[in-house]
Amino acid sequence: MMVWTSVWEVFTLLTYSLTNEDTRPLYEQLTDALMRDILSGTLPAGSRLPSKRSLAENLGVSSITVEAAYNRLIDGGLVTSVPRSGYFVEEIPLRELAAGAGGGRTPEKAHGHKGNGFSGVLPARPGAGVASDAEGSGTSPLLDLSGNRAPADRFPFSVWTRLLRSTVNDLGPELLQPSPGGGVYPLREAIAAHLRSFRGMETDPGCIIVGAGTEYLYGLLIQLLGRERIYCLEDPGYRKPAQIYRAAGAECRWAPLDRDGLTVSGLDASGADIAHISPTHHFPTGITMPVSRRLELLRWAAARENRYILEDDYDSEFRLTGRPVPSLKSIDRDGKVIYVNTFSKTLASTVRISYMVLPPELAEEFFRRLQFYSCTVSTFEQYTLAKFIAEGYFEKHLNRMRRYYARLRRELLRQISEGPAADRIRVLERDSGLHFLLQLDTGRSDEALYKALLSQGIRLNPLSSYYLNPSEAPEHTFLLSYSDLSPEDLGRALPVLAGLL
Amino acid sequence: MMVWTSVWEVFTLLTYSLTNEDTRPLYEQLTDALMRDILSGTLPAGSRLPSKRSLAENLGVSSITVEAAYNRLIDGGLVTSVPRSGYFVEEIPLRELAAGAGGGRTPEKAHGHKGNGFSGVLPARPGAGVASDAEGSGTSPLLDLSGNRAPADRFPFSVWTRLLRSTVNDLGPELLQPSPGGGVYPLREAIAAHLRSFRGMETDPGCIIVGAGTEYLYGLLIQLLGRERIYCLEDPGYRKPAQIYRAAGAECRWAPLDRDGLTVSGLDASGADIAHISPTHHFPTGITMPVSRRLELLRWAAARENRYILEDDYDSEFRLTGRPVPSLKSIDRDGKVIYVNTFSKTLASTVRISYMVLPPELAEEFFRRLQFYSCTVSTFEQYTLAKFIAEGYFEKHLNRMRRYYARLRRELLRQISEGPAADRIRVLERDSGLHFLLQLDTGRSDEALYKALLSQGIRLNPLSSYYLNPSEAPEHTFLLSYSDLSPEDLGRALPVLAGLL
Repeated sequence: MMVWTSVWEVFTLLTYSLTNEDTRPLYEQLTDALMRDILSGTLPAGSRLPSKRSLAENLGVSSITVEAAYNRLIDGGLVTSVPRSGYFVEEIPLRELAAGAGGGRTPEKAHGHKGNGFSGVLPARPGAGVASDAEGSGTSPLLDLSGNRAPADRFPFSVWTRLLRSTVNDLGPELLQPSPGGGVYPLREAIAAHLRSFRGMETDPGCIIVGAGTEYLYGLLIQLLGRERIYCLEDPGYRKPAQIYRAAGAECRWAPLDRDGLTVSGLDASGADIAHISPTHHFPTGITMPVSRRLELLRWAAARENRYILEDDYDSEFRLTGRPVPSLKSIDRDGKVIYVNTFSKTLASTVRISYMVLPPELAEEFFRRLQFYSCTVSTFEQYTLAKFIAEGYFEKHLNRMRRYYARLRRELLRQISEGPAADRIRVLERDSGLHFLLQLDTGRSDEALYKALLSQGIRLNPLSSYYLNPSEAPEHTFLLSYSDLSPEDLGRALPVLAGLL
Repeated sequence: MMVWTSVWEVFTLLTYSLTNEDTRPLYEQLTDALMRDILSGTLPAGSRLPSKRSLAENLGVSSITVEAAYNRLIDGGLVTSVPRSGYFVEEIPLRELAAGAGGGRTPEKAHGHKGNGFSGVLPARPGAGVASDAEGSGTSPLLDLSGNRAPADRFPFSVWTRLLRSTVNDLGPELLQPSPGGGVYPLREAIAAHLRSFRGMETDPGCIIVGAGTEYLYGLLIQLLGRERIYCLEDPGYRKPAQIYRAAGAECRWAPLDRDGLTVSGLDASGADIAHISPTHHFPTGITMPVSRRLELLRWAAARENRYILEDDYDSEFRLTGRPVPSLKSIDRDGKVIYVNTFSKTLASTVRISYMVLPPELAEEFFRRLQFYSCTVSTFEQYTLAKFIAEGYFEKHLNRMRRYYARLRRELLRQISEGPAADRIRVLERDSGLHFLLQLDTGRSDEALYKALLSQGIRLNPLSSYYLNPSEAPEHTFLLSYSDLSPEDLGRALPVLAGLL
């Protein structure tokens, strides 16, 4: 908890000129301006920001704009709201280092990430660095080493747009016929065929439900399974599902992991009905659950009628080394596993197409009870994706991306092992997926190092930020996620990191 | 309630040959085959259908397929499920009329509605005849006089696809940058400009939230306003919101209408916090709420902190006669009105883009609490629609559609007034919107007439089907919704209707 030693009004300082020539929304320009002043020390820790109304009047913008900017800064940990007192700048250790660094922004990076608002890479909530955090467009002043987006420049844009055009030409007004609630049949068949050849899964296309993003599908699942159920998440783990379950009114609990992944004893103790897990490649530890634990989990699910396992197979496509791991769904004999995957990670985060495969019994219930929901993905994109898969482009793209990621990973590991802090960085969990852990030899606390890097314009999340209780996490361990990282990015970050260890 | 007098097993009859040459999904082929046998009398009322498993084995399909087909027939009122007994064919009066009629299907209609599965126009739930009911594609054996889709052949397809192509060319990889949670800014600005010029509404684009359909937006609203709140709907009224509120765990109540629309006394008595209404053009009565009642409703909302009004402005664009009516939102001084509208009705039901305009206070709360949700509409379509509006095509399209609908409406009214049952049909609520009511001079009950028409392949919903308590509805009054109807359609339906009165 911060102690506010010096509280003073900085109202007169805040006379930013927000302009329509900047194509970004006003609140984003304001957020950016405030952030610069905070990181540069112009607005020192403990400063009270003006009230929303007075700043809005002063700048000639609406108070929504100011509110949005303040909330961004709060989310980013740069500002704190103190009830009945106001908004205060947080203490950021080692700010002196930031003064001359310009927030880590470089012209190259700004160009490479054109249109990507800084707010998308603010350390909003470690682990939640996906599309939804981004409001607006602009340049990218922060270098995010813990993001998890698909790299925009690797999207097969010309093939995709060619297929989109041919879909429009071939299908014409057919595209205007309503999609079935579960998605158009050709897409569900293409997904089933992909799962067969790629994951060895036998899937009835009628059990596949297509939706605009996994978040949306989770929302449907809560309606299907019941919000009176208890949902168990992995601790440590990806944090967004908890936000969704809670926003939908369902209760979340957590169970601890051991070296084989989620513990069944912990799951039992949680009293949960639904286990939400990533057995193929756990985030962020990278654990691949062995068959023995998988069978144990399936037995847990089979023991009660209302138990289910939600298998989030989010990056199985990018397992780069080791033997292929069958999905939990493929060894489920009792209709207990709900399989969820997305094309946002394999194609582009703006392709909002995800799907789930329901056990037949749940599929029947879904179509009986929730069929009134229209499919949320436009037919234009459903048919385009169906073609993309059916004509073999998806498989080619996955192969190309695997080769790209494998090369990138090798290069990044080489850079680390030959870089300025080689003897103080140990890489953990090398065997799969699009991230690994860095164990750092440093005397600084995780929080101090995180903030010091942030003040240099670099975001690197500590593993502890994915734990319910950060003190239970191994110290000095950070998550490096490289899906949207370049060797040049890492080359800029390593000397900074070395200087801070 | 049906009484099952003759229960006999018809298993041996059901040996349909389902084929992959038919491009429709198997369950849809099966539904169609079963429906034909039911309408033709081959499967008489009271017949027990085989169990799902045995029919599945017999036909060599999965039991999901059979379940899906049975559920369709149940939704359509053709089959009833009796717990622990099985599935039974419902009694359909006047089936003898159907025997030779082939379910009302004609080659023209089948061609004109290519790819539109019959299930989309099954009388699933009167008033719910929108996209989500449709599973699959095929031909359209039922003529739906109460549907509410935008006519697919009026969609400005070539302009839309040209703009889609130019969006792809102009923006390129920019399309791969994540959309803000509320939608890309150019679209929100275009919507605000449209609301200004078309509805006289001053809207901050930052208060606009874009989502994949109003159903999805209602789901977000329930999370924003709280599922512990009580939501009040209009009785009679559109039925789908109740399904959504209930599926999301919120309580729905209803308040009655008088000639000015929703009664504030009824709303008060309901104990509700949120009133969900369509003041500009109530569905299905067509009532336009006068200013006095609007002010009364706004006072109701202002009286308590947690009260809000959800204004569904679903067909304000197509008010064809009478003075323009300002939206409730535009006279709201207390930040109490949430405005919701969609492009699915004005463009095409497959364009899954809707939006809501939140009061500033709620917008702030939305971005504070629910910002983690990614926007569910793809950037490709968001930017295309932004261009479509900003470059004036939307306004042109609306003008063209208004002229089209006005001509169509005149022609349909002429047909009715000069048709075979002219002296027994009175048209009510002529002054606006895309539907009107028919008061029929008949001795038949609403249900009997509805089923008789259905057995002839024509769907015409009684007004009573939109009432919580059908006995409170004026009798012999039916809803004719003409947005996707042609004079030829009505020309075929009128003699059938005349014969049944």
